[in-house]
Amino acid sequence: MSENESYEQSTVSVIGLGQMGTRLAQAFLTAGYTTTVWNRSAAKADALVAQGAVHAASVEAAVATSPLVVVCLPDYTTVSDLLGPVAPRLSGRVLVNLTSGTPEEAASMAAWAAGHGADYLDGAAMSGTRLVGRPEALFVFSGSPEAFASHRPVLASLGNPVHLGADPALAPVYDTALFGMAWGALAGFYHAVALAGSAGVDPAAFAAVATEHMPFVTSLMADHSRQIKNGHFPDDDGTVEVHAAAMEHLVDTSRARGLGTDVPELIGSLLDRAVATGHGSSGIAGVIETITKGERNA
Amino acid sequence: MSENESYEQSTVSVIGLGQMGTRLAQAFLTAGYTTTVWNRSAAKADALVAQGAVHAASVEAAVATSPLVVVCLPDYTTVSDLLGPVAPRLSGRVLVNLTSGTPEEAASMAAWAAGHGADYLDGAAMSGTRLVGRPEALFVFSGSPEAFASHRPVLASLGNPVHLGADPALAPVYDTALFGMAWGALAGFYHAVALAGSAGVDPAAFAAVATEHMPFVTSLMADHSRQIKNGHFPDDDGTVEVHAAAMEHLVDTSRARGLGTDVPELIGSLLDRAVATGHGSSGIAGVIETITKGERNA
Ligand SMILES: NC(=O)c1ccc[n+]([C@@H]2O[C@H](COP(=O)([O-])OP(=O)(O)OC[C@H]3O[C@@H](n4cnc5c(N)ncnc54)[C@H](OP(=O)(O)O)[C@@H]3O)[C@@H](O)[C@H]2O)c1
Ligand SMILES: NC(=O)c1ccc[n+]([C@@H]2O[C@H](COP(=O)([O-])OP(=O)(O)OC[C@H]3O[C@@H](n4cnc5c(N)ncnc54)[C@H](OP(=O)(O)O)[C@@H]3O)[C@@H](O)[C@H]2O)c1
Repeated sequence: MSENESYEQSTVSVIGLGQMGTRLAQAFLTAGYTTTVWNRSAAKADALVAQGAVHAASVEAAVATSPLVVVCLPDYTTVSDLLGPVAPRLSGRVLVNLTSGTPEEAASMAAWAAGHGADYLDGAAMSGTRLVGRPEALFVFSGSPEAFASHRPVLASLGNPVHLGADPALAPVYDTALFGMAWGALAGFYHAVALAGSAGVDPAAFAAVATEHMPFVTSLMADHSRQIKNGHFPDDDGTVEVHAAAMEHLVDTSRARGLGTDVPELIGSLLDRAVATGHGSSGIAGVIETITKGERNA
Repeated sequence: MSENESYEQSTVSVIGLGQMGTRLAQAFLTAGYTTTVWNRSAAKADALVAQGAVHAASVEAAVATSPLVVVCLPDYTTVSDLLGPVAPRLSGRVLVNLTSGTPEEAASMAAWAAGHGADYLDGAAMSGTRLVGRPEALFVFSGSPEAFASHRPVLASLGNPVHLGADPALAPVYDTALFGMAWGALAGFYHAVALAGSAGVDPAAFAAVATEHMPFVTSLMADHSRQIKNGHFPDDDGTVEVHAAAMEHLVDTSRARGLGTDVPELIGSLLDRAVATGHGSSGIAGVIETITKGERNA
């Protein structure tokens, strides 16, 4: 790209138009921001251009055209390979990396960006592709607080943008942790659907009630986080011992109905271990110590 | 109690003033309903009487004074022992049993109540004692739809009353299933807090973001219940294979940080089993088949 071409034509550039990148670009366009796009296979830009996107002829052009550069590629190696040759162009811009990776990768990319005069935000899309652009789609970001503050309105076109802190490693940490949390809930839900189903309850009917119960379960998380922080576990939501007995009942019931018992057995084993380590009369959040002290009890 | 004493003085009677029964009676009183109470140890009625409750001198008086009789005792045997001698008094009334028990116990108590001319609702308090009386406190009921319909306004003083169906066994089925579901979410949350904590993230800071993510996870439950119903698992939320790889990463990361790996390993084993049974390219809800076909794969 020659020095004569006009820069800063766009508000935001999106590099990588896979399933996620395409949705990101669509959301920026829908919110009315001038959006430049680039993808290795150029054809993936066509639908976005029809929606009003500017199609950059090269990665370099995509970087040079916007103060905010969003990349969404399979992994950090691909990001490095693609941006390495055009690194000088990043100076004075904000690089937002929505590629999934590790805390270490995020930290090293932030250092690399800083070395080229760019501000860096690591990020993770928490709600899949379907909800992108809807206010409930959670996007977590970490890194430069100033970069986040100045581009917050644009990032808000993606959904609910949350800044986790200045340490760029935080986004991958939360990404991994929230993934595990979501799966705990889903595994519990699948087991529950299977159990209710064995008593003739329709999955969708069960889910209608389950989704009315989840806000309560979610409220327990907030309560328990404070208990964990204080290292003090009051028994307002029942004791470990009482829950261990109820979990044993759930294992027995599940077995009697011919279902897999892996999920309640795992939870029962955490509860039993908490009892064995003297937490029987603690509130249930005391169970976390069987995880944080995992190696010691293994 | 002699035939001359006045009956039907109250809207509702509560028998059993333990932690839960006391909160139930308080909620009825707060909503402005005339409430009669009885407890084995009479002193537990004092605070409620100060709040306006009528103190019944006997179980029989408590039953005879209201069209709606709510019992909340440790177990069904205690309920049977206590109500057996006064069974004739139940005729024409609605018995609501908020004692925890099994589907079989609920079915047999419904039959017993019917034999004495009473309508029966089995029930379960899903949100602990603290929220009782708040609109978000879920109470599930099953049994006579007419009894539920006519007493719904009174039961709504307890929170969010949901009628599950005419089969009295449904309340204990949902109770057990929802308990397991809640624990899946909590186990996932505790693991996530431990993982984030190992990277220096404060539990309450993590919970603030986690609780913004849970509505999305809850929305997946509704979607997946429809997929389970149809036995067809589209991969909108990712494939089993991709999630299995991500779960392996979570196990490795957790182990590297010295945490217990039980929770992600359990979920990983469900995902791996789904891959092994040919569901690798299915959407993640396909994992339910590793639970419903538990015995076959064991
Ligand atoms: N999809 C989701 O639901 C989801 C959810 C959360 C996070 N994420 C994360 O978002 C990132 C992207 O995922 P995705 O689902 O959008 O992936 P995808 O659909 O597989 O798309 C991959 C993109 O990367 C490009 N690409 C691959 N190798 C390249 C290379 N060597 N040079 C240049 N471009 C290359 C592809 O270009 P071509 O079109 O030329 O192949 C394509 O645009 C991943 O880190 C993923 O973990 C995805
Ligand atoms: N607490 C909760 O968070 C919670 C949540 C959901 C469901 N539940 C269910 O609610 C039910 C009651 O639980 P709770 O926590 O309220 O129990 P609790 O605090 O232990 O109270 C037990 C009550 O039962 C009475 N009782 C015990 N044995 C008796 C007997 N032989 N004859 C007459 N009365 C007797 C006790 O009377 P005395 O005062 O005379 O001992 C007391 O009023 C249980 O089925 C429980 O599973 C409780």
